[in-house]
Amino acid sequence: MLSKNVETFLECDKTYEEADTVLFGAPFDSTTSFRPGTRFGSGAIRHESFGLESYSPYQDRDLRDARIMDSGDLELPFGNTEEVLREIEERAAEILSDGKRPFLLGGEHLVTLGAFRAALKKYPELCMIHFDAHTDLREDYLGVKLSHACVIRRCWELAGEGRIHQFGIRSGEREEFLFGKEHTDLHAFTFDGLAEVLDSLKDAPVYFTVDLDVMDPSVFPGTGTPEPGGVSFDELRKAVTLVCQRANVVALDANELSPHYDASGASTAVAAKIVREMLLALMQ
Amino acid sequence: MLSKNVETFLECDKTYEEADTVLFGAPFDSTTSFRPGTRFGSGAIRHESFGLESYSPYQDRDLRDARIMDSGDLELPFGNTEEVLREIEERAAEILSDGKRPFLLGGEHLVTLGAFRAALKKYPELCMIHFDAHTDLREDYLGVKLSHACVIRRCWELAGEGRIHQFGIRSGEREEFLFGKEHTDLHAFTFDGLAEVLDSLKDAPVYFTVDLDVMDPSVFPGTGTPEPGGVSFDELRKAVTLVCQRANVVALDANELSPHYDASGASTAVAAKIVREMLLALMQ
Amino acid sequence: MLSKNVETFLECDKTYEEADTVLFGAPFDSTTSFRPGTRFGSGAIRHESFGLESYSPYQDRDLRDARIMDSGDLELPFGNTEEVLREIEERAAEILSDGKRPFLLGGEHLVTLGAFRAALKKYPELCMIHFDAHTDLREDYLGVKLSHACVIRRCWELAGEGRIHQFGIRSGEREEFLFGKEHTDLHAFTFDGLAEVLDSLKDAPVYFTVDLDVMDPSVFPGTGTPEPGGVSFDELRKAVTLVCQRANVVALDANELSPHYDASGASTAVAAKIVREMLLALMQ
Amino acid sequence: MLSKNVETFLECDKTYEEADTVLFGAPFDSTTSFRPGTRFGSGAIRHESFGLESYSPYQDRDLRDARIMDSGDLELPFGNTEEVLREIEERAAEILSDGKRPFLLGGEHLVTLGAFRAALKKYPELCMIHFDAHTDLREDYLGVKLSHACVIRRCWELAGEGRIHQFGIRSGEREEFLFGKEHTDLHAFTFDGLAEVLDSLKDAPVYFTVDLDVMDPSVFPGTGTPEPGGVSFDELRKAVTLVCQRANVVALDANELSPHYDASGASTAVAAKIVREMLLALMQ
Amino acid sequence: MLSKNVETFLECDKTYEEADTVLFGAPFDSTTSFRPGTRFGSGAIRHESFGLESYSPYQDRDLRDARIMDSGDLELPFGNTEEVLREIEERAAEILSDGKRPFLLGGEHLVTLGAFRAALKKYPELCMIHFDAHTDLREDYLGVKLSHACVIRRCWELAGEGRIHQFGIRSGEREEFLFGKEHTDLHAFTFDGLAEVLDSLKDAPVYFTVDLDVMDPSVFPGTGTPEPGGVSFDELRKAVTLVCQRANVVALDANELSPHYDASGASTAVAAKIVREMLLALMQ
Amino acid sequence: MLSKNVETFLECDKTYEEADTVLFGAPFDSTTSFRPGTRFGSGAIRHESFGLESYSPYQDRDLRDARIMDSGDLELPFGNTEEVLREIEERAAEILSDGKRPFLLGGEHLVTLGAFRAALKKYPELCMIHFDAHTDLREDYLGVKLSHACVIRRCWELAGEGRIHQFGIRSGEREEFLFGKEHTDLHAFTFDGLAEVLDSLKDAPVYFTVDLDVMDPSVFPGTGTPEPGGVSFDELRKAVTLVCQRANVVALDANELSPHYDASGASTAVAAKIVREMLLALMQ
Repeated sequence: MLSKNVETFLECDKTYEEADTVLFGAPFDSTTSFRPGTRFGSGAIRHESFGLESYSPYQDRDLRDARIMDSGDLELPFGNTEEVLREIEERAAEILSDGKRPFLLGGEHLVTLGAFRAALKKYPELCMIHFDAHTDLREDYLGVKLSHACVIRRCWELAGEGRIHQFGIRSGEREEFLFGKEHTDLHAFTFDGLAEVLDSLKDAPVYFTVDLDVMDPSVFPGTGTPEPGGVSFDELRKAVTLVCQRANVVALDANELSPHYDASGASTAVAAKIVREMLLALMQ
Repeated sequence: MLSKNVETFLECDKTYEEADTVLFGAPFDSTTSFRPGTRFGSGAIRHESFGLESYSPYQDRDLRDARIMDSGDLELPFGNTEEVLREIEERAAEILSDGKRPFLLGGEHLVTLGAFRAALKKYPELCMIHFDAHTDLREDYLGVKLSHACVIRRCWELAGEGRIHQFGIRSGEREEFLFGKEHTDLHAFTFDGLAEVLDSLKDAPVYFTVDLDVMDPSVFPGTGTPEPGGVSFDELRKAVTLVCQRANVVALDANELSPHYDASGASTAVAAKIVREMLLALMQ
Repeated sequence: MLSKNVETFLECDKTYEEADTVLFGAPFDSTTSFRPGTRFGSGAIRHESFGLESYSPYQDRDLRDARIMDSGDLELPFGNTEEVLREIEERAAEILSDGKRPFLLGGEHLVTLGAFRAALKKYPELCMIHFDAHTDLREDYLGVKLSHACVIRRCWELAGEGRIHQFGIRSGEREEFLFGKEHTDLHAFTFDGLAEVLDSLKDAPVYFTVDLDVMDPSVFPGTGTPEPGGVSFDELRKAVTLVCQRANVVALDANELSPHYDASGASTAVAAKIVREMLLALMQ
Repeated sequence: MLSKNVETFLECDKTYEEADTVLFGAPFDSTTSFRPGTRFGSGAIRHESFGLESYSPYQDRDLRDARIMDSGDLELPFGNTEEVLREIEERAAEILSDGKRPFLLGGEHLVTLGAFRAALKKYPELCMIHFDAHTDLREDYLGVKLSHACVIRRCWELAGEGRIHQFGIRSGEREEFLFGKEHTDLHAFTFDGLAEVLDSLKDAPVYFTVDLDVMDPSVFPGTGTPEPGGVSFDELRKAVTLVCQRANVVALDANELSPHYDASGASTAVAAKIVREMLLALMQ
Repeated sequence: MLSKNVETFLECDKTYEEADTVLFGAPFDSTTSFRPGTRFGSGAIRHESFGLESYSPYQDRDLRDARIMDSGDLELPFGNTEEVLREIEERAAEILSDGKRPFLLGGEHLVTLGAFRAALKKYPELCMIHFDAHTDLREDYLGVKLSHACVIRRCWELAGEGRIHQFGIRSGEREEFLFGKEHTDLHAFTFDGLAEVLDSLKDAPVYFTVDLDVMDPSVFPGTGTPEPGGVSFDELRKAVTLVCQRANVVALDANELSPHYDASGASTAVAAKIVREMLLALMQ
Repeated sequence: MLSKNVETFLECDKTYEEADTVLFGAPFDSTTSFRPGTRFGSGAIRHESFGLESYSPYQDRDLRDARIMDSGDLELPFGNTEEVLREIEERAAEILSDGKRPFLLGGEHLVTLGAFRAALKKYPELCMIHFDAHTDLREDYLGVKLSHACVIRRCWELAGEGRIHQFGIRSGEREEFLFGKEHTDLHAFTFDGLAEVLDSLKDAPVYFTVDLDVMDPSVFPGTGTPEPGGVSFDELRKAVTLVCQRANVVALDANELSPHYDASGASTAVAAKIVREMLLALMQ
């Protein structure tokens, strides 16, 4: 008796009831201004995780012991940004209301706004830890407010002053850096100061968003806007492990893999391994 | 005394005042549901036209003798479809109101709607000749009405019954073919019947839209949705020449080149040559 | 209540009980001598079928009306050819014994041998219709008998004289063509004679194997050994439709898509559309 | 006792003394104005011929029965066009003076000039049969006379009126077509008239030059300047077979494969197969 | 009133009169012995600079405040190296004589010779700072003296002993390293000693040439001859900033980007960002 | 008098009698479970070594002074793993029995088993130094014992406890790491401890196997299973130099280059340069 083809991220094949963390993908990139293709990110991470081991020698943990379910990708209405964000928010809210942790795989960075809105409704005191090459703090981009280049600005408007902690930032307009200096906790270029921020957050609920382009293009060329001068794989691996182990992460995402721009597949492998390390570090 | 770098399609370097036809690009692909990338189409056609001759042995005409200007690409607000269409319409209307013929280079097929609206305002009796692999006749696509998959349906709503003549169609949902049977003049698979349609149109003003994926993917793999079973380059070349010579074409477009999907550059060369033949055939 | 991610070929999402035809993939290419990569074929056909319509204007039929299930890919032990064939045979036998029709997606052409053995056990009078660029009639390849280059020779040994009907053949060693002249019904270069063969077969049970490289590389470059001079998409489309409608096809396969060799995705689209047309033509 | 690695085109492994035809490569592309890369052509044809059979079912002949030697590629001084042509001429002259037939593999089309000069010295009444997409009849290209775009004009200057027979031509400047009309025997677009020309040439010594871009880019995208509207593989295959069988070909070449532009490898396979058919047709 | 399409490097859109620095491209690669393609370098840097911000958080400067003009690419006669160098020299001389600083974008490294000759005529005491993976000190390459592999040797012949300061060198023939030891100031592998050299140069006029392959191929794979073991992006960024701020740079270039070899676009982004940092560091 | 085309790795053109080290390739990848393509590794290293200098400024040595012969690739029977290993063993044994050192170029890592068996027969006390990202210590892989994922386990079975020294390991199943802890000398992540191991080995005969994927994918993306977090080029270069200079290396290999996955060619350049440094360090 055969069953229909099921495809999940590496060993993330628990039932919804068993799971404490639920993966879902948002294959959306319509506001991307330079080079599109992140819509293929979540599918590629899932599909290519077959080449990865479930065991991490870094953490000495194995995904076989975790309680994670991969619910696949949303089917999103390209061309209607508002509705796309509403559907992402709805999915995240459902998972949160069932007492589980949503883990969103992008897509472009704007998808974060949907999941962040859902988490903020449940946790009004929510903070954000944000890894990225770009500030994403523009007021608008060519008149568009719901744009990947503005996503953290939109989150800031919802969460308020002092809640956004940014790391690894190395690109943006002059105005964005000035805005960051006044309104967010912006750490340029590196993860310096991360441990201190985590200490100060204590048990506060945290939304953790990782724009994978925080890594250098030598490590991660498969992204829409390669931004030289970024962190290494090991630097990011250690930083995400730290956040997932020490902060009270109630919702999280990883985004901006654009797999077709790196035909070698290395970028997809890097993304999948970072996701694996995040999932392992979240285990109790 | 040096001047700033100017880049135009093959010899289309007349001033606006001299020109009778004006090229402009709409690098937009946000509603594309399958594989994006047509935003790079107009730029690639312009950039790679350097490899092409301005003389056509098919027509024994030379673009050096034509009066064409290439005004470059619009800078469009990704993520706001309505506004994108408004800006395309505005540009086309400006060109039409100056007594010139707008030639729009896509971008995805939805861009046609902007230029068609402008032309319809000037020519209320406007007809459309439509070459495509797909019907583009959906009522909506995942709830979105302003989608590449619905663009001809939207044009039909504006122009009314019997004005839309479709050729080369080989893909769509069952409902779209049924709709086409009742409401448009749909010629499946080939250009059969084109000469008769042109005869019947006489001097009626015509909007001519060419979705380049009407060609077979062997000829034109560089497009978002390769659809096997299409027409050959020579078939399309002859058909566009026929339309541009015999119909009263008041506005036109060519779209859906997604150059990165064909690393050989052949698709871009094909697109540029079709555009060259259209421009030459429009000469008086 | 979310469920795990399911991924099937275009609308082939019936349960096993509902289905009359069952797709399964054999992602194997270990005996490929020139360029490997067909192991990615079945996955690509399934994954990229998202870009295709379920409705065919050629046949005026829709996969939504068919009773087909996609059971996914076998997990095969690379490096042990005998065992790989045994597992394919076992899967095909299970489907056949449940009164259903197995449709195998390769992988390299050797996978046919596994499914053919299963079908021959159930139908001792089984014939084969074989579309291919290559004869695949070698006695051995560098001493290896279980090789993609020998697969039809192995089938011939099992089925006996006069049961193998080959079409489109345009490549092989001199000895293979001589063997074909004596022992199989070899039609070189084209599908000439296909209708006559189908007439003569009447209701005899038929195994139908399509090596997609029977198509010209202009249409289908995504294969291990591009062999110029092949048939067009429309020629193959018509021929597979004819076989599936007129012969008593009890088991079938399509193989040799190597998707990474055609970065445009056109070859995968071609393969998926041929599979769609085969499935539609099998409907009663 | 091991020997150093030898690599030749498909079975062309006779000694120089045994051979009646000698292959040599000229990996040169320095005058290419649009996209370079033909320098990799001869190496790719040699290297990838491994995927091809030595037997042709079209001609029922086998390269194992031929007397051909592959002497490898010349090492050419990039940046010094005059010297490059001198070295090609010298190599061709050596082969001719030993009573053998040189078969040159390009490289860009300019390499023809070197071999043509050698052949003309031995055969002052030499004619040329020229297959190409382009006329190559420019007087100069941006002031440069030794350019791929001028190569046939240079040959014409040496051979004189009425000796150059051109086929398949579909691109060039208006002036080139006018020049062709007056000074060469230019057949546009197809091979129409080839049999008549061969009849008229009788036993005259012929230099046969094949610019592979005479084929359509759907068949042969791997070339510097893809020129839509070309001949098919079968049309070229038949035409080269005709020339090699019926004309007195004393020297020949095939050029303009730029393998990296076609990552699928199909263009290289096409080039290798055309070379195979030419070599087989030359057999007595 | 529309104007013709203008395309410049990131905000470098001042008029010639306003500008103190003038960009121009030399899309030439004819002497490249291994893999051509740097001819596409200057165009790619210009075209892809759209994805980059004009503001640098490293220097806290913005290109919007600079006075730079991009005059586009020269149209060069491929196949005539002498003439190519003459045209580059002429363009550089024109800019220098108008009291402006020429910034040449290659193209292969040989283009430096043209601009260096122009600068040396104006500044007879000119020194050179040279960043590169290769010594470029060969006397000739296969007999050719005007070759990319000899360019610094040619400059040395013009400028004399002790004027050439080389950094990052990690590849060359034994003879080249011996030559460097005696005649140039060659610093192998790194930028060690750069600050000291800059101190010693004081206000001497400097020609600054950056072969971008000084970076490691992990950072910059898009070049003709990838040479493992190079410097990082940050090391180069700091070094070029130092030179442009502290030396009296009267003319400069960046070359050897071959964009097609890195389909991810990361190499082009790296090149564009290095050029941006150089331009910003030159601002007073 | 021309000779047949000979192609060897960079200056490795001595005769068999002159040589003390003999290169041979094993283009095999049939047990690769994730992405095949290492079969093209040895050919690419040989072919692309043309772009490399024979002189190393790191070691101040030149391959022109070495006594090395490149005997080309074995022609292996794909699909018969046992026979493939037998042929590799036979070739290695022949070279060893002639008092020379075999240097095997893979292919996938399983090829090591053939050469290791030959060396162990001659040197029963043979030790192994193993650089790799993966432990390769599985008992079996999907039931297959002769698999790339099991190769070091198979060698361990032959050589016995304490003879295998592993470095750079960062991936494997939990069970493999536990096995390594008990039975091999496994150094995770880096080359820490290498000098001490070399000291302890003194003059013991050593088989040195380098899986090139020990390097980070940023440096070496051209491999079947990119495994982020690896060593840099310089770290590997220094480590292989140390082993080849200080250990008594009687046989060695470098494997797992899959050149097509890195279209930039950088991975092939990295592999060729590592091989060059190994060969130079072996010189007395």
